[in-house]
Amino acid sequence: MSPRRVTLLSDFGTADGYAAVMAGVVAAAAPSARIEHASHDIPPGDLLTAALTLSRYAFLYPEDTVHLVVVDPGVGTGRRALAARVGGRFFVAPDNGVLSRVLERGEGEVVALEHDQAKQAGAPPGETPTSATFHGRDIFAPAAARLARGETLDALGSEISDPVHLELPAPGRTADAVVGEVIQVDRYGNLITNIPASWLRELETATVRVSTRAVGPLARTYADVEPGELVALEGSIGMLEVSLRNGSAAELLGLGRGAPVRVA
Amino acid sequence: MSPRRVTLLSDFGTADGYAAVMAGVVAAAAPSARIEHASHDIPPGDLLTAALTLSRYAFLYPEDTVHLVVVDPGVGTGRRALAARVGGRFFVAPDNGVLSRVLERGEGEVVALEHDQAKQAGAPPGETPTSATFHGRDIFAPAAARLARGETLDALGSEISDPVHLELPAPGRTADAVVGEVIQVDRYGNLITNIPASWLRELETATVRVSTRAVGPLARTYADVEPGELVALEGSIGMLEVSLRNGSAAELLGLGRGAPVRVA
Amino acid sequence: MSPRRVTLLSDFGTADGYAAVMAGVVAAAAPSARIEHASHDIPPGDLLTAALTLSRYAFLYPEDTVHLVVVDPGVGTGRRALAARVGGRFFVAPDNGVLSRVLERGEGEVVALEHDQAKQAGAPPGETPTSATFHGRDIFAPAAARLARGETLDALGSEISDPVHLELPAPGRTADAVVGEVIQVDRYGNLITNIPASWLRELETATVRVSTRAVGPLARTYADVEPGELVALEGSIGMLEVSLRNGSAAELLGLGRGAPVRVA
Repeated sequence: MSPRRVTLLSDFGTADGYAAVMAGVVAAAAPSARIEHASHDIPPGDLLTAALTLSRYAFLYPEDTVHLVVVDPGVGTGRRALAARVGGRFFVAPDNGVLSRVLERGEGEVVALEHDQAKQAGAPPGETPTSATFHGRDIFAPAAARLARGETLDALGSEISDPVHLELPAPGRTADAVVGEVIQVDRYGNLITNIPASWLRELETATVRVSTRAVGPLARTYADVEPGELVALEGSIGMLEVSLRNGSAAELLGLGRGAPVRVA
Repeated sequence: MSPRRVTLLSDFGTADGYAAVMAGVVAAAAPSARIEHASHDIPPGDLLTAALTLSRYAFLYPEDTVHLVVVDPGVGTGRRALAARVGGRFFVAPDNGVLSRVLERGEGEVVALEHDQAKQAGAPPGETPTSATFHGRDIFAPAAARLARGETLDALGSEISDPVHLELPAPGRTADAVVGEVIQVDRYGNLITNIPASWLRELETATVRVSTRAVGPLARTYADVEPGELVALEGSIGMLEVSLRNGSAAELLGLGRGAPVRVA
Repeated sequence: MSPRRVTLLSDFGTADGYAAVMAGVVAAAAPSARIEHASHDIPPGDLLTAALTLSRYAFLYPEDTVHLVVVDPGVGTGRRALAARVGGRFFVAPDNGVLSRVLERGEGEVVALEHDQAKQAGAPPGETPTSATFHGRDIFAPAAARLARGETLDALGSEISDPVHLELPAPGRTADAVVGEVIQVDRYGNLITNIPASWLRELETATVRVSTRAVGPLARTYADVEPGELVALEGSIGMLEVSLRNGSAAELLGLGRGAPVRVA
């Protein structure tokens, strides 16, 4: 078996060293694993952003990659800790919905981590008693390391069937209209909606509106409009997006998550 | 052949997962490659900063390193996609001038990527049809992965002789004066100019002025002035810089890119 | 010997490419080393934050990991450059106190780097003459690469016994009270104090006060209070912390480093 990759996603930032702590724990417990930092810049506690971000890259990594996700506002409550195998990749995360988007893929197996087991096998001796505030170090990273070393999901805990599901606002459709909303604003100020672009196949000439602003019909790419103009297009994950060519649509329109979108 | 390194430079940030997407594509298509994130914090669409940043580290990496650079405001236009070999390193980037500084080194070979080829060999099956908005994932990362696997430049496309060149403002000199301008402000607030420090050899006692402010003659290092004082010196890449010891010259002077610099 | 890991910690940010420069120098001089970016987001010149951050992860990494730390406001002064071996890990850093917290662990060996030696062995030929402004590239990264290649501390310089020590404000205690102060605010707005939680064992019912605000007795975890309430607890490194459940205590209280803390 070639060494497995472990990706890290969190809302830790990097300056405080918490992200490096998780990397160090994985490195110590699974010395041959390749560690890759996906991001530590998720806004603190923002489960929806983390779920969307994870779903973008999770299945592009090779089979057997271990995706460690620690956005954990409920640390210290009774929330469970999970490991999952979906689509040939592994996931380790708190049971708070952050895996919702990848679990929607279906055919996944999910186990609830047995903490003591995880600690016994993975945590550095002496250094780090299980804390009540940093399960990324004490529970999640050791579990990811065990998977990276080739252990099976079953070795980490017992299967569950009711992981927490994070409800995304659902888009709606009628014969001649589709409605939805903005669910994410990316670094470029693109307004990413919850409307699958595939829903617009029959509505090619319909006008996309975000809040009160008419953007126009679905275009193919940014270059279909002039710099400084708004454009509606299919984004890289297949959702309808509203963008400003060479600028930030979010800033221009003063809109963000939750803004209503209508195509008709 | 020992595994090649692939460095990633972009303006993606990390929070949205687009950077991890490129890393995942490279990891899947070139499993033994070592992936290193140089930076994803280039200001959105800032080609000049990207070109300068890349030129700082590109040739310090080992021979055969593949430098993947995706700052791509023209995605979706007809701009070409490039791969190049310069100074023993590989580069993959949009044809928008972002490689200008490394190509100035000369003796490089540049090819225009043939997209279908790149997709066929590198893109994950099914998951990611070529999008009109994210060529980092669909074209550039797969091409970088092919080079990391040991393919040659010629396998990726046909040689071209006219890559887009990003004009840097040129410094000027007379017998007793040198003029130029600030081309970058770094994280410390250092004002980095386009004047090669080597041009000041004959002007050792001349005064460096940025905008209307006289800074003094070229010093050797920060410690040549007291904390809180301005100092002109040769920066780490051989250019004249104006710095504030233990502070930000850019903030103190309220100056940035384009500010005129004169040594006389 | 399996390849050694080299972690990088700095206040460089990543956008300017200085962090990638150090990684490139290490990669070229120690091709088999595994490079991991711990953080480049230390606030510019903030030695205390760097020292605390480093101490969180340094000893969780495997034995023989090389921790490269470049927060170096004194570059260009006569300050020494150090390499150290403490607790089975290596450290390379300027002699400015940034290693204070790891050296407190005791039983360390510290050498002052002999610069020419370091340069001769590690710096890329031709490209980078030793600058007066970027010792991360010219001195520290080459030294880290030498250690990553398996060289001993003694090969890098001569032992010293007086590394600069960064004084942390000391907490105080009487029979029925403990006093200290906030020494760091993390990304979540947690107020991390200099008071070891172990000092509070006999003061279980005492009230924790930060500045004029009574927070309550030491709790076990965030979930012991309602969302939006303040809580005092033992943080992940064993120090007393004051947190706001699901929010930023620093923002709510308008407090930061230096704020007085009293438990009585």
